[in-house]
Amino acid sequence: MAEEKRKKLSLIVFSGDMDKLFAAFTLATGAAASGMEVVMFFTFWGLRALKKKVRTGTSLLGWLIGRIYGGDIERAGPSRFGFGGLGRWMFKKMMKAKKVPSLAEMRRTAIELGVKLYGCTTSMGVMEIPREAMIDEVQACVGVAFFLEQARESEITLFI
Amino acid sequence: MAEEKRKKLSLIVFSGDMDKLFAAFTLATGAAASGMEVVMFFTFWGLRALKKKVRTGTSLLGWLIGRIYGGDIERAGPSRFGFGGLGRWMFKKMMKAKKVPSLAEMRRTAIELGVKLYGCTTSMGVMEIPREAMIDEVQACVGVAFFLEQARESEITLFI
Amino acid sequence: MAEEKRKKLSLIVFSGDMDKLFAAFTLATGAAASGMEVVMFFTFWGLRALKKKVRTGTSLLGWLIGRIYGGDIERAGPSRFGFGGLGRWMFKKMMKAKKVPSLAEMRRTAIELGVKLYGCTTSMGVMEIPREAMIDEVQACVGVAFFLEQARESEITLFI
Repeated sequence: MAEEKRKKLSLIVFSGDMDKLFAAFTLATGAAASGMEVVMFFTFWGLRALKKKVRTGTSLLGWLIGRIYGGDIERAGPSRFGFGGLGRWMFKKMMKAKKVPSLAEMRRTAIELGVKLYGCTTSMGVMEIPREAMIDEVQACVGVAFFLEQARESEITLFI
Repeated sequence: MAEEKRKKLSLIVFSGDMDKLFAAFTLATGAAASGMEVVMFFTFWGLRALKKKVRTGTSLLGWLIGRIYGGDIERAGPSRFGFGGLGRWMFKKMMKAKKVPSLAEMRRTAIELGVKLYGCTTSMGVMEIPREAMIDEVQACVGVAFFLEQARESEITLFI
Repeated sequence: MAEEKRKKLSLIVFSGDMDKLFAAFTLATGAAASGMEVVMFFTFWGLRALKKKVRTGTSLLGWLIGRIYGGDIERAGPSRFGFGGLGRWMFKKMMKAKKVPSLAEMRRTAIELGVKLYGCTTSMGVMEIPREAMIDEVQACVGVAFFLEQARESEITLFI
């Protein structure tokens, strides 16, 4: 009855926090490097990881999201120790000192390793982030049914 | 040795945030609509998704939780952009404008599609939320062993 | 192609919040008690769950993390209702009144039941938490490849 499992990792990336995105891309690139198929579904705050550096939003909240939560993947701050942007700056410095790649670099590596990136259509609607505001490498914008199909045949599925 | 996997989705819903509950119910109803068996275990802050609009709590912290974190599923606010309740109001407006159903409506749909809702007994004790404070449709209040059994035979298990 | 699944639970513990650690150790001890093999990988904020009560950090942010996010597992506060430490105190009191074991006790039980604890090398580097700052019972400090191998053969894998 159940799908046959494949050597595959599926991630739902709900969070847009720097540290959680870092965990997500570490898992994704690690798995892809070891020969696993990897799919990442970005939803809600996670959509920022797919965004270009453009303004979004037409309604009041959409505009607010576009302003406060705007920018691209490099604008992501840590889930703790934000200190009004200072935390982001310090974490970036620390990671550079430890030769840990930046989020943009990790995303680039993920794409090069064949990791497939998807945007969630429902949350794109709610957050007012259109396809045009996203990087070209996004595979497609899909709904929950598509994700569930991918997850069912995956050995590992995580909600981040 | 391992359980045989079934066409089944198990969710542990730890969060009581509007956006995460929205993700949880989207996955649950999507999976149930495609013919999957779905079980949801609500624990800690997630218990609010099962609550009626009643007061709870007998100890000081229980009373505080009952006041500050009180109300039913409709009182859930977003994990970001709270703005002291303003965020919740704006998100609800945006979702309505996009014809996205409310959390109460999604829960209703989930129940109609046969999704089974469970409360976690340990966290009900800690949070001082008794069975009587929950909606009638809750299947049962169960412990971790019950959940693990369900998860072991599920194709997909997520912690939200 | 896919790994054969074993009676096994793998947890990535990313969060260092009291309530999420509580959920993680409840799942881990519950699974181990029912005869499952259990592995826990602690990363980022979750590393605190493995720490001794010592100072860490050499760079400015490392020192800040060592100060603000310092201490051992007993210093973990709830993800909500922090109230500047008051929430932690109240939750501990409530859990004690309900005869729920403390985090340190749950970790002890997990170790006694054979749960294996691992630290994530990359985040240990970024957070400046060396092996010496961790309890002796930590199995090993490992990378993402090791974790993925464990997860692939697990019936259940969760990101907490």
